[in-house]
Amino acid sequence: MGRFTRHVFICNNQRKEDDPRGCCQSRGAMDLLDHIKKRVHDSGLKGKIRINKAGCLDACQYGPSMVVYPDDVWYSPQTVEDMEEIFTEHLQNGRVVERLVIDFSRK
Amino acid sequence: MGRFTRHVFICNNQRKEDDPRGCCQSRGAMDLLDHIKKRVHDSGLKGKIRINKAGCLDACQYGPSMVVYPDDVWYSPQTVEDMEEIFTEHLQNGRVVERLVIDFSRK
Repeated sequence: MGRFTRHVFICNNQRKEDDPRGCCQSRGAMDLLDHIKKRVHDSGLKGKIRINKAGCLDACQYGPSMVVYPDDVWYSPQTVEDMEEIFTEHLQNGRVVERLVIDFSRK
Repeated sequence: MGRFTRHVFICNNQRKEDDPRGCCQSRGAMDLLDHIKKRVHDSGLKGKIRINKAGCLDACQYGPSMVVYPDDVWYSPQTVEDMEEIFTEHLQNGRVVERLVIDFSRK
């Protein structure tokens, strides 16, 4: 067992507005981060599940992007509802939310 | 196989100077980050090994702190030489550098 049962990194990168890649922060990553941090805290999972901001995860085109370790599952949540599903399904119950998993083979 | 062979997160947190916990940034984390990023780039490992800044990893007392996923190995490198050893031994050759591993059982 590692230090945390699950350790989540959410891209917090910000680029200039005219950058064609866009960036996770302009796509609402911070609101999604706030939501999942609060859920972890309110569920008494602090110390077991850790949520961290991270620099650019090199998944800009799928942003907001995030990764759950040690599972190594990458997600592209677009809404608070998506993030809620990742929290309840994956972080709490260990079930990967397939519909939100990033498919790196496309694009 | 995950997206990256190894994904490294280095704590980049900065606290006020009078905070008793100290912080990784004031202990030189950024120089260590710059070193390992450059080594990955110069070794042609970009795309296989990813180095990211992260928010507080909750290992302040061992700082500068970092974690290598998916291995889930936590390190406390104090010098550029320490970081170089983590790069050549662990990231390139998959051998954990035991002397630098954080022992969370001690405070």
